[in-house]
Amino acid sequence: MNSASHGRDLPGDGLAAQRPQHQTCVFCEIIAGQADLGVCLPVSDGFVAFPAKHQRPGNRGHMLLVPTGHYTTLEQLPAAHVTSWLTAVTILSAAVRDTFHATGTTVRMNLGPPGQDVAHLHTHLIPRHPDDGFATARSHALSLPDRLAITRQLAPHLDAHQAVDDGGPPSHRAP
Amino acid sequence: MNSASHGRDLPGDGLAAQRPQHQTCVFCEIIAGQADLGVCLPVSDGFVAFPAKHQRPGNRGHMLLVPTGHYTTLEQLPAAHVTSWLTAVTILSAAVRDTFHATGTTVRMNLGPPGQDVAHLHTHLIPRHPDDGFATARSHALSLPDRLAITRQLAPHLDAHQAVDDGGPPSHRAP
Repeated sequence: MNSASHGRDLPGDGLAAQRPQHQTCVFCEIIAGQADLGVCLPVSDGFVAFPAKHQRPGNRGHMLLVPTGHYTTLEQLPAAHVTSWLTAVTILSAAVRDTFHATGTTVRMNLGPPGQDVAHLHTHLIPRHPDDGFATARSHALSLPDRLAITRQLAPHLDAHQAVDDGGPPSHRAP
Repeated sequence: MNSASHGRDLPGDGLAAQRPQHQTCVFCEIIAGQADLGVCLPVSDGFVAFPAKHQRPGNRGHMLLVPTGHYTTLEQLPAAHVTSWLTAVTILSAAVRDTFHATGTTVRMNLGPPGQDVAHLHTHLIPRHPDDGFATARSHALSLPDRLAITRQLAPHLDAHQAVDDGGPPSHRAP
């Protein structure tokens, strides 16, 4: 069992006890380990990441960075999370680049309709490659085993970049 | 003459004196008022916005949010700018939504190649509408008068949202 998939046990999630949750939110379910067991990685205080369900063929490794608390808008995000969010984007971006041998990343947040399809604030972290046809390529749905494979592939690279940020290796992930 | 287009005179730009500049950077030129006079609006401390040169037909009002200092990567952005950046995204997103009667926005940052076409960190703020075909629509280049029109259209809405954030109306923009 991977403790990283259980919301209340998420190490580095200092706000777990008081974070707002929403009973019918698919992201809250993933964070709480009710779905997609093991697909979820802690990134920085109050933020986790898991592979997006729909990915473009040329951009395998498209991750979603999500606050563990249920916030719908940027205005609702607690001030304490702002620095943590940018740290998370920086760490995850570097890890995604390393894992998928990307030359860069695209960071995207859809705020409100029609872009925001889940009412739980989230940031897309997408590996980019030369001539990836990103702007025009259609996405396709990934299976759970495929998403688990992406998570396992990313985990050690995330470890490495978290270690740089924290000044030491993290000990919070199951082997 | 619009003082907002002159880098060293940008009100709210507390780091103007010591901000790094790059002589051949098109964004540094715009911020310094050497190009596109009047197209540039101050948003929050250390950040300005101007219309993107290429915009999709259904998403008129696509703005670029840019630090006044020349930073290429997220890692180079001073810690003091992080909160200021998220404040700027929140304010500009609300102003873009109001100005262009959008239902939401898309916030995008391209970090490194092939997405990042200018080596000066920048965030795209894009108005979104139902059925705007955003993912597939091609962009086209805007003329300078057209970009100036967008800037003038946005300015009062930016004022309104900055006033909410600051607790008072800003007095830094030419009428």
